[in-house]
Amino acid sequence: MAVTILKGNIVSAPECGKLDITEYGYLIAEDGIIIGVFSQLPERYAAVPVEDWGDCLILQSFADLHMHAPQYAMMGMGMDLPLLDWLNEYAFPTEARFTDADYARTVYRHLAHELVANGTTRVSLFSSLHREATLILMEELEKAGIVGYVGKVNMDRNGASNLQETTEESQRETLRWLEECQDFPHIKPILTPRFTPSCTNELMAFLGKLAQERHLPVQSHLSENHREIEWVRELHPECKQYWETYAEYGLWNDRTIMAHCVHSDARERKAMKDAGVTVAHCANSNNAICSGTAPVRVMLNEGLKVALGSDVAGGCSIHMFDAVADAIKASKDRRIMDNWRTDFLTVAEGWYLGTTAGANFFGAGAGFAKGDALHAMVLDDSALVPSTRPLTVQERFERCVYVRQPDAIRAVWSEGRKVYNAKNR
Amino acid sequence: MAVTILKGNIVSAPECGKLDITEYGYLIAEDGIIIGVFSQLPERYAAVPVEDWGDCLILQSFADLHMHAPQYAMMGMGMDLPLLDWLNEYAFPTEARFTDADYARTVYRHLAHELVANGTTRVSLFSSLHREATLILMEELEKAGIVGYVGKVNMDRNGASNLQETTEESQRETLRWLEECQDFPHIKPILTPRFTPSCTNELMAFLGKLAQERHLPVQSHLSENHREIEWVRELHPECKQYWETYAEYGLWNDRTIMAHCVHSDARERKAMKDAGVTVAHCANSNNAICSGTAPVRVMLNEGLKVALGSDVAGGCSIHMFDAVADAIKASKDRRIMDNWRTDFLTVAEGWYLGTTAGANFFGAGAGFAKGDALHAMVLDDSALVPSTRPLTVQERFERCVYVRQPDAIRAVWSEGRKVYNAKNR
Repeated sequence: MAVTILKGNIVSAPECGKLDITEYGYLIAEDGIIIGVFSQLPERYAAVPVEDWGDCLILQSFADLHMHAPQYAMMGMGMDLPLLDWLNEYAFPTEARFTDADYARTVYRHLAHELVANGTTRVSLFSSLHREATLILMEELEKAGIVGYVGKVNMDRNGASNLQETTEESQRETLRWLEECQDFPHIKPILTPRFTPSCTNELMAFLGKLAQERHLPVQSHLSENHREIEWVRELHPECKQYWETYAEYGLWNDRTIMAHCVHSDARERKAMKDAGVTVAHCANSNNAICSGTAPVRVMLNEGLKVALGSDVAGGCSIHMFDAVADAIKASKDRRIMDNWRTDFLTVAEGWYLGTTAGANFFGAGAGFAKGDALHAMVLDDSALVPSTRPLTVQERFERCVYVRQPDAIRAVWSEGRKVYNAKNR
Repeated sequence: MAVTILKGNIVSAPECGKLDITEYGYLIAEDGIIIGVFSQLPERYAAVPVEDWGDCLILQSFADLHMHAPQYAMMGMGMDLPLLDWLNEYAFPTEARFTDADYARTVYRHLAHELVANGTTRVSLFSSLHREATLILMEELEKAGIVGYVGKVNMDRNGASNLQETTEESQRETLRWLEECQDFPHIKPILTPRFTPSCTNELMAFLGKLAQERHLPVQSHLSENHREIEWVRELHPECKQYWETYAEYGLWNDRTIMAHCVHSDARERKAMKDAGVTVAHCANSNNAICSGTAPVRVMLNEGLKVALGSDVAGGCSIHMFDAVADAIKASKDRRIMDNWRTDFLTVAEGWYLGTTAGANFFGAGAGFAKGDALHAMVLDDSALVPSTRPLTVQERFERCVYVRQPDAIRAVWSEGRKVYNAKNR
């Protein structure tokens, strides 16, 4: 049996707003499965070598619940454009390029490396329409040691001339993709209708049936901006609200991720809560393309499941440290908009959303829960300016959420395996 | 005569919203003074060695018009606290530590290095009350090659027990500081009443007289949050508006920087415009401590001078790339708040605010203006993911505003001198 013992200042978020901190503690895993966090080394491990990280912080690694992997190639561009121009000039042409397997390989290898080097070990990603590129994405994530879901995008209407499938093609390619991706041990398929305007009713019905028959999870977009909501209303006069266009086809349950939900009203939020849908809150993108400011505090108060997504490339950063900080910032914007009546997210709350809340979607428990596979990272903040007095671990942790430090992440574990070591770069 | 010839993709912002781009162009300076940007090397320089930066971008360096230098030591902490608790638990105790000259030296050396390594070459900084630490700050900035202003803070009321001066002491120390800082060639003094609640009328009158007699610039805070505005109203019942508390003492003219101005109404904005006051817009801090969202678009439309400040440590980043991106984000928040009626800042506009608009306060012209001292940086974006097609220089420039790349800045020039070279780190 392989025992991993990490020593350092261990911080985890067992519940929203609470941090567990163990100074110079021991995080122990056996065969990659967490045994627990201990302030003293239990005697039965006395003979096991300890990986001593000195004064470093040992943190949960991140879960990114929404990102468009091909759009990583255009991150940070076109942000002055209105949404539709941005889609037509950047997003669609970029995704169309992923018919080229070599290009896909280059981009996805780069992406997988950047994810893991920045402490993201669980993901749920949109690929493009292309089966082959989707398999390459899954393979590169697998090689980098990341776990989670990837979805071949389904889109049989309202795409671009070079980025759309027929209904038949979409169904056939989806089935073939599901066949061909069975052997990846850590990266699993997730059904991915792009969003309601991209999928005919026939395709939606097919996907809903597939989800049910094969017990597959689902990801899509919901109520991101006003114009989109209006469009969905025109396309589905039979549905009172956007979410019903998913629910009527069996794409709405506790294995569903809905990205954005910026303008979901009380009724739509209740439907998410009742079904156990997870909201992927994408604060950076909601601002960047002027969608709006999602009422995350209200969602949390109402008991919805909320986690974070980088939403590259509507979002401009793949780093989940940024996603956490941006979620806090968005909550402060919301406070300002609500005339200072709504509470903002604290650092501990933002951190919980980026770690435990996201990990929950993959079946993990809270914080460094006993029985979970080890997902962790070591953070070295020693290069920061000397402070006026010795800082508490909590203060150092908070500073790391806000202050970007190149090369601060020293090592990362995913699903019990050490997948990144700064020395190896 | 020393001639500098930089070759690369040269981008500058000559006016708000406009970019001048010269691909594989030549930026030429003689004895550190800009001659111009040329698409072909003028024949008279044919024998001069060219510093060829290949495909890199050559950009204006930044001007940071508002920052609290001692608070650099607490950057990124206490951001969950209400403003007054944050001041009492973090800001004031941190500043009080700057009675210790050795500590001040350590922090300010770190600060000066980080500024220059991240492309900030012009600054207007608040120091603390302490004359000695202020001189150390000026010395360290000078050594690092930065130019601009530093102010010893004046505060003879409403401080902390260990962070306040008597009126007499404040006056005496200010005069002595002005005496002692005369020999710095590039770092000059700026009068710095912390803000109206921190200074008695007697002290304000003294500073106003000093500003006039010695033709000194002035920096302070204005209309940052509602509670502060209310407080000023109580302290100065003779003034209709906050700005008048500065104007009545002669601290309100075209050599004045006012930080924040989040809640300045049309009358206060007109007073700024009429006097030629420069607004230091601090988007990160305005969000972080929930002050509000400054109406920068309105200010620009009205013809006010607006530049950017990092406002460390109400702001959490010293990097002006972040300040530019945050100004754009804040303008998008403002657009959302205004029900999508207000235009956001484009990338070109945000960049102008962080470069030319700030440089103007120091007497510089627009973009790489002929006759200005050379302030520039070289940016290498070659480590970013390969895009789907060759990008234009403008696209690469935009991407650099949004996507943080460690080690991307290869070299920096300030006041005609090369002050940073990545190889030397």
